[in-house]
Amino acid sequence: MTSDSSSTYAVTGFDAAGVAAGIKPDGALDLALVASPVPCRVAATFTRNAFPAAPVIYDRQLLALNPEQIHGVVINSGCANACTGIQGRVNARLMAEWTEQALGAHDSTVFVMSTGVIGVQLPMEKLQAGIPQAVQALQQEGWPAAAQAIMTTDTRPKLATRTLQLEEAEVRLTGMAKGSGMIHPNMATMLSVLATDVAMAQPLLQQALSHSVERSFNRITVDGDTSTNDTVLLLANGLAGNDEVTDPTQPAFQQFQAALTELCQELAQAIVRDGEGATKFVTIQVHGAVDDEEAHRVGKAVANSSLVKTAFYGSDANWGRIIAAVGYAEAQVDPERVALFVQGGPGPGQRGEELQLVQGGGPTDYQEEQAAAIFAQPEIDVRIELGLGEGASTVWTCDLSHEYVTINGEYRT
Amino acid sequence: MTSDSSSTYAVTGFDAAGVAAGIKPDGALDLALVASPVPCRVAATFTRNAFPAAPVIYDRQLLALNPEQIHGVVINSGCANACTGIQGRVNARLMAEWTEQALGAHDSTVFVMSTGVIGVQLPMEKLQAGIPQAVQALQQEGWPAAAQAIMTTDTRPKLATRTLQLEEAEVRLTGMAKGSGMIHPNMATMLSVLATDVAMAQPLLQQALSHSVERSFNRITVDGDTSTNDTVLLLANGLAGNDEVTDPTQPAFQQFQAALTELCQELAQAIVRDGEGATKFVTIQVHGAVDDEEAHRVGKAVANSSLVKTAFYGSDANWGRIIAAVGYAEAQVDPERVALFVQGGPGPGQRGEELQLVQGGGPTDYQEEQAAAIFAQPEIDVRIELGLGEGASTVWTCDLSHEYVTINGEYRT
Repeated sequence: MTSDSSSTYAVTGFDAAGVAAGIKPDGALDLALVASPVPCRVAATFTRNAFPAAPVIYDRQLLALNPEQIHGVVINSGCANACTGIQGRVNARLMAEWTEQALGAHDSTVFVMSTGVIGVQLPMEKLQAGIPQAVQALQQEGWPAAAQAIMTTDTRPKLATRTLQLEEAEVRLTGMAKGSGMIHPNMATMLSVLATDVAMAQPLLQQALSHSVERSFNRITVDGDTSTNDTVLLLANGLAGNDEVTDPTQPAFQQFQAALTELCQELAQAIVRDGEGATKFVTIQVHGAVDDEEAHRVGKAVANSSLVKTAFYGSDANWGRIIAAVGYAEAQVDPERVALFVQGGPGPGQRGEELQLVQGGGPTDYQEEQAAAIFAQPEIDVRIELGLGEGASTVWTCDLSHEYVTINGEYRT
Repeated sequence: MTSDSSSTYAVTGFDAAGVAAGIKPDGALDLALVASPVPCRVAATFTRNAFPAAPVIYDRQLLALNPEQIHGVVINSGCANACTGIQGRVNARLMAEWTEQALGAHDSTVFVMSTGVIGVQLPMEKLQAGIPQAVQALQQEGWPAAAQAIMTTDTRPKLATRTLQLEEAEVRLTGMAKGSGMIHPNMATMLSVLATDVAMAQPLLQQALSHSVERSFNRITVDGDTSTNDTVLLLANGLAGNDEVTDPTQPAFQQFQAALTELCQELAQAIVRDGEGATKFVTIQVHGAVDDEEAHRVGKAVANSSLVKTAFYGSDANWGRIIAAVGYAEAQVDPERVALFVQGGPGPGQRGEELQLVQGGGPTDYQEEQAAAIFAQPEIDVRIELGLGEGASTVWTCDLSHEYVTINGEYRT
């Protein structure tokens, strides 16, 4: 995210590649591969959509079958392989098999992801030709090309990395993600591949990933639509040389989980910042709910409101829309205890003074110009205090702009 | 709706008026009154938002206190009197009292509604001066002016009427509504006043209204935001001369309920047709769900999806977005049983041939041009068959356009 030096992202034992297989009509990179000659343990989370795409169905079975001896993941953009019936499932499997053959790996050792338009079959000849090219192109410094090759309406690749010291060993953790609507049934949608050289038992990898995804990718929203293809995959090849982490009470597990959460949050926030048509990055913090779940429901209602999002776009300090969204979130609320604060800034970590807009459910004595100045900033923090309990949540979102309508009104044309 | 002749809407014993009280800065009509010298029985439904506006709180109490001896309702636009604390509640009560005094009516006989910006106090001096003017202006043919005076971002007034024969008696039923986002926390939002001369027991009026609202106003969505002010009020003065309806099994009750539902649907659909920035009117029909509630959940998910709505706006037959919304609706779905049909037309009741896009969860062999031609129509019907049970629902919505973003990004400026 912060450097163009591709070696910044290298993880011991992993290679990555991105090539143009001709799936996208404009000749852009559209086929990515991440591979590890050393077998990896894997953890994954998938969409909850009732229409999972063929690659999601395939990956779920593979994860159950073989969570410990995986050699990589192949990803195409330009076609989601979703709502494609039996043919789609055959194609997802073929895509994995061709990759396994090109890598010289065993059967059932490669995951598959697809992103793009729904309801169209994969161009199998192009994939058959492209996969060996991608294998040829594999290199430790291949992450930026791979991140490029999984983009759809994304305007920039999303890569992040962390290094942590586990006792003597230096552990590396690198991830890439795509997604520009959080969930974009059409673009089908949010994908992320994370690679690490940590040595850790597979159940702990899954525990750490689920924890981190809940606090990152599951906390972002661009348009409130849940895709058919969402997948986050974590590959761990164990080459860092640390003592294998086998117990979640070990400090090493906590350290890894914290680094993984940070990494996932950085990637998740990068998706929101690159939200379709987004001009503003908005953080919604909810405190004082009866529990975390209700806090999250309130945060999501505010973050998904088209009226709140257009007010951010218009730099209109129209806090009544925020309060109304709090009111329909189906969480316990006592209007007379509700307080609302806003704060703005030009970029990450840069914030001006906080301004209280609502106290006891009614407006404070604030100056309209002060509020307008905050809503005009590129980054806005909204803090909602419900005053009922200890429940808290944070949700990241973006504004709803003319450009969003243009992108999505004209996507296929 | 169909005629400019104001006498079309007259109901025996009811007078209506709309005047300019100076609440809207541009001098437009902004204060409406509907009154009946003969006391009315009333029924009402209110927003479920946890932040009900002051007039909603007032009306709920009044309905409990006095459901049988009501003389009218006073409504202002330009200010929602929502999130206005104790002062707002005092002001709602004053607005009712001034109207009662000007009408020469008893205490606690007038309902109050407000619609406009949230978080701003009512301009009480203007209301105090305006209310007697509105009483002066009352006339049987005053409905069009009243319907005009309750508009906010509405581009046209919404009026409808029905006449039904109950045995010897001719019963009239007239209603007006406002709302341009279904639910518009800012504009706070959907209001409707219905007047009838039917003689009917009050509990039956409430039963009929709740039934009708569930099948009309609760089936529309513009932006998925639930307002703080939504109210539907039915006033019945009993002057039609029919034998009083006292039993829901009477044919007269069924006839009235059917007419009321029709009237509410006409008004509800008029709100969607006038949805903020709407260029298309879309009907989502869901059949074959396990029950009606799940069918409704699926219909709402599709109708509220920003991606589906922008696809309608862009005339893009991007059915994958519809299927993905079905998939995240949290209803029971078997992808292999799902079918999807679309049909379009230039206006109400005018429809071309139906086209099947999805069969068994995958695309049919349809021609893209045929689908595109349907999505380009001003009115589009979407029929989703889940193939699981008998549950069904219909939801009406509109597209999401650039103009919606403009209206809501710049509303207060």
